Amino acid sequence: MSESNDPSPEGYARNPWWETSIIDMEPGVIRYFGYPIEELIGNLSFAQMIWLMLRGEIPTKGQASLLDAALMSGVDHGPQAPSIAIARMAATCGVGLNNAMATAINVLGDVHGGAGEQAVELFQNIAAAVDSGQVLEDAVRDEIAKYVAEHGKYIPGYGHRFHPIDPRAPRLMEIVGLAAEDGVVPGRVRDIAMAVEASLADKSRGKSVPMNIDGATAVIYAELDFPAPLARGLFCLSRAVGILAHAWEQQCQGGRNKGPIPRNELPVYSGPAQRPVPGDI
Amino acid sequence: MSESNDPSPEGYARNPWWETSIIDMEPGVIRYFGYPIEELIGNLSFAQMIWLMLRGEIPTKGQASLLDAALMSGVDHGPQAPSIAIARMAATCGVGLNNAMATAINVLGDVHGGAGEQAVELFQNIAAAVDSGQVLEDAVRDEIAKYVAEHGKYIPGYGHRFHPIDPRAPRLMEIVGLAAEDGVVPGRVRDIAMAVEASLADKSRGKSVPMNIDGATAVIYAELDFPAPLARGLFCLSRAVGILAHAWEQQCQGGRNKGPIPRNELPVYSGPAQRPVPGDI
Amino acid sequence: MSESNDPSPEGYARNPWWETSIIDMEPGVIRYFGYPIEELIGNLSFAQMIWLMLRGEIPTKGQASLLDAALMSGVDHGPQAPSIAIARMAATCGVGLNNAMATAINVLGDVHGGAGEQAVELFQNIAAAVDSGQVLEDAVRDEIAKYVAEHGKYIPGYGHRFHPIDPRAPRLMEIVGLAAEDGVVPGRVRDIAMAVEASLADKSRGKSVPMNIDGATAVIYAELDFPAPLARGLFCLSRAVGILAHAWEQQCQGGRNKGPIPRNELPVYSGPAQRPVPGDI
Amino acid sequence: MSESNDPSPEGYARNPWWETSIIDMEPGVIRYFGYPIEELIGNLSFAQMIWLMLRGEIPTKGQASLLDAALMSGVDHGPQAPSIAIARMAATCGVGLNNAMATAINVLGDVHGGAGEQAVELFQNIAAAVDSGQVLEDAVRDEIAKYVAEHGKYIPGYGHRFHPIDPRAPRLMEIVGLAAEDGVVPGRVRDIAMAVEASLADKSRGKSVPMNIDGATAVIYAELDFPAPLARGLFCLSRAVGILAHAWEQQCQGGRNKGPIPRNELPVYSGPAQRPVPGDI
Repeated sequence: MSESNDPSPEGYARNPWWETSIIDMEPGVIRYFGYPIEELIGNLSFAQMIWLMLRGEIPTKGQASLLDAALMSGVDHGPQAPSIAIARMAATCGVGLNNAMATAINVLGDVHGGAGEQAVELFQNIAAAVDSGQVLEDAVRDEIAKYVAEHGKYIPGYGHRFHPIDPRAPRLMEIVGLAAEDGVVPGRVRDIAMAVEASLADKSRGKSVPMNIDGATAVIYAELDFPAPLARGLFCLSRAVGILAHAWEQQCQGGRNKGPIPRNELPVYSGPAQRPVPGDI
Repeated sequence: MSESNDPSPEGYARNPWWETSIIDMEPGVIRYFGYPIEELIGNLSFAQMIWLMLRGEIPTKGQASLLDAALMSGVDHGPQAPSIAIARMAATCGVGLNNAMATAINVLGDVHGGAGEQAVELFQNIAAAVDSGQVLEDAVRDEIAKYVAEHGKYIPGYGHRFHPIDPRAPRLMEIVGLAAEDGVVPGRVRDIAMAVEASLADKSRGKSVPMNIDGATAVIYAELDFPAPLARGLFCLSRAVGILAHAWEQQCQGGRNKGPIPRNELPVYSGPAQRPVPGDI
Repeated sequence: MSESNDPSPEGYARNPWWETSIIDMEPGVIRYFGYPIEELIGNLSFAQMIWLMLRGEIPTKGQASLLDAALMSGVDHGPQAPSIAIARMAATCGVGLNNAMATAINVLGDVHGGAGEQAVELFQNIAAAVDSGQVLEDAVRDEIAKYVAEHGKYIPGYGHRFHPIDPRAPRLMEIVGLAAEDGVVPGRVRDIAMAVEASLADKSRGKSVPMNIDGATAVIYAELDFPAPLARGLFCLSRAVGILAHAWEQQCQGGRNKGPIPRNELPVYSGPAQRPVPGDI
Repeated sequence: MSESNDPSPEGYARNPWWETSIIDMEPGVIRYFGYPIEELIGNLSFAQMIWLMLRGEIPTKGQASLLDAALMSGVDHGPQAPSIAIARMAATCGVGLNNAMATAINVLGDVHGGAGEQAVELFQNIAAAVDSGQVLEDAVRDEIAKYVAEHGKYIPGYGHRFHPIDPRAPRLMEIVGLAAEDGVVPGRVRDIAMAVEASLADKSRGKSVPMNIDGATAVIYAELDFPAPLARGLFCLSRAVGILAHAWEQQCQGGRNKGPIPRNELPVYSGPAQRPVPGDI
């Protein structure tokens, strides 16, 4: 996968402190994983380019469609999501759109942006257990139990505190199903994910804990063979769109130093009562 | 453009401190600008969704193709760009991919990420001058002069310190030309941008200052009627891809606390020589 | 102010791409502006070290006391301030304390964190006008008028939407007054700032627009001869304390994905009513 | 520790979604942990205020001195540290000082900013083992072995890739020793930390792995009873000073889009050789 002795263009030196397989440049030349940029422009969609940049190869049309679906479905969940509220608040503080976007993307951490990555790992663990000879239902039950023991009761990719059924998940699963029928993806992770859903319903005595957007996009990313950490990275790209849209809408609405609640509402104070500063500090 | 008295779903209250036209939610329901998410999924590409989120309407296929081209062409310019180097350095400091992305997107400020926005403004100013009756060449010359007087010698969107000709620009302009022939866009900004290029060459006595990626994408964004600040926002979405790819590559390469230069190279020190701390501070 | 030909320690090279007067290092040696670190430790307070790092010299005790007062008085204004609310929200999203701090400091932009810098500039402009021969009252009136013409009605450093009188400002001004009496600072900026306050009251026909924390700390920073942009930098250092305290308190309180308002409150939606996705996109 | 039914000031409501013990406000009134701000100003140093904000009480002078020493000693390690280089690079990209600071503080993650927190945890684990009846030397050996098994070979707080002996550490330990003699702190963590150093030297067969700045400040924070995560938070406050100083110095030096290495040096490219884009994507 390498061209290790690429010569340096005249007047330039190659500094080995920085090394990349992604991009090669010479004056007047830009190539991504070997493809000249002027041949890519006009032939690759944005989603196809995202794939190329992360995987090093150009995806098939079917793969790109699935990636498109995953990326476009997670863009926004409104100002109750901390990332979106923070983007809007930042936009009223006198910073640029790039800063507002960075501020919001920064909070897509383990709890807010990590569920996709964690779900991919869970699905991969179940697949590995099946590969080692376990029956699917047993592997699902055991891996869920392990997950709960290590990380607590929230199973990443399942359940939603607002939506009884997350309207994005069944539609995405339908699309994955069609892609599996067409041979675009194996469909194995989809089966695992549905077995997890069944197992959770079983465990909750019929009260369903249905798959959510993080679970459904994790199925797609895992079917497409993305490493788990990139599920978070791809979610960040996706949510960046909603973050930009809300920062921009807020900027157009105006406002200065917008706080979380109306200004005539104060937080509850639960600290010590008023007291004087001692004289001898 | 509004449905001002949308009822609150049962058990929920509408809090007017937060107001948006982008997304409406009820339990089990998500709509973007009125479109139910489950109808959008599978029908809109990522680029089309970006357009919907920023413009409120679904673009035509032709518009979406142009947006795709602009977004995919600016993803990366390698580790010499501060944003990319910073993404890679951040990845070695023990933070998540979301944090590495935020760190890098944050520096896409006026100098590093603002050229597209500034170029759109320049093109719009020239268009306005022509609308007021000036001949194109005069408007171009006057607006360039005004820009230089206010902001200094760098004309946003033209010239490149590395590429004699930025290979992305002519290819993007070719695509805009085809889109104008097909009636997808008016083509007027393209003409203005080429007049700016001609004027700069003229002014530099034949030494060309050719259009760069920022200028070419600015032409597309302006042809598609995006407000100038969104040119920066869209560049942030685009560059976020390269930022993610490089942060991920660096994470896979390993390394801890990667600084800008090899560790046996020290900065030049130009401060006072060694001196003792005075006794009486 | 320089030791331009400092030799490189053995095995190390000096790379002129990076140059600094702040710190010089050799293996086993760290000096800040020439002072060996082991002589500084135990002799300089944190505020004195902040001064040394920004100014290149060790402050007098009187200067350090004033800097201490300015830094300690701006640490926090509670969760209604976007910076503090954002720090708390970030802490519930699964990111580190460093990330929560960065997220919040990032929004201390022109509107939220820039008033001190802008007030220093206003005071300096008035001082320059007086130096050019204008009477103080005229200079104040003219510079306020210029400021309003360029930036709008908010005079940086004066007025508060919550406090009729900001309790920090008079106390800080009292301390500056004592420092002026003791010869620690000239007291000239204090006189200018009080003349601005008087002029604003006059203009508002007796309704006072009293100095706020930004104005009072700007007086201190300007009396101590800090360049205007450092007024913002110092405010960031100061507010970083409240940001850390609130992020930490929130982390101890727990919570996941804390949004701006209680979860049973939805934003008002003001976009298009529900509509189908057209068939031919 | 609470005043749960504090009345709301007239015209204001208390919103329980936000709750804090740190600050209480009414129009014209600001109190931190019960202390009116106007009584604190002029009486507390910046370091004392930091303590109050994080601990809820005013420290003794001896405690404040130790905190001062820890905070002032970690401000900067020059542009080879990713945080400092990133601050400088950000300053050339057209963002505000607050944004440059946030960008840099953001990378003080587990690897770059977490060693203090990890060292406090290690010291606390050793103390707990001793409390359970183990001899100090055995507890040290066992806890180091556990740490290595879980986290790898780097012991947080010990060793430095640049300094054979970090000049900050022995001086800080001397100060802690004096504080222990004066009864300001127990001195127990200092003993543990020195036992760790001895054990590491022993293990490395005489080749010392001496305590570094992270270890020495961790001793101070642990002696002062700060919870481990605040060791990272306090390091962020400390390093923020160097970050600001370098961002400011770089801003004054000028430069646009400063990358990590001189512009005539290119990264090494190790990806696929040039190849054409296939026709059928």
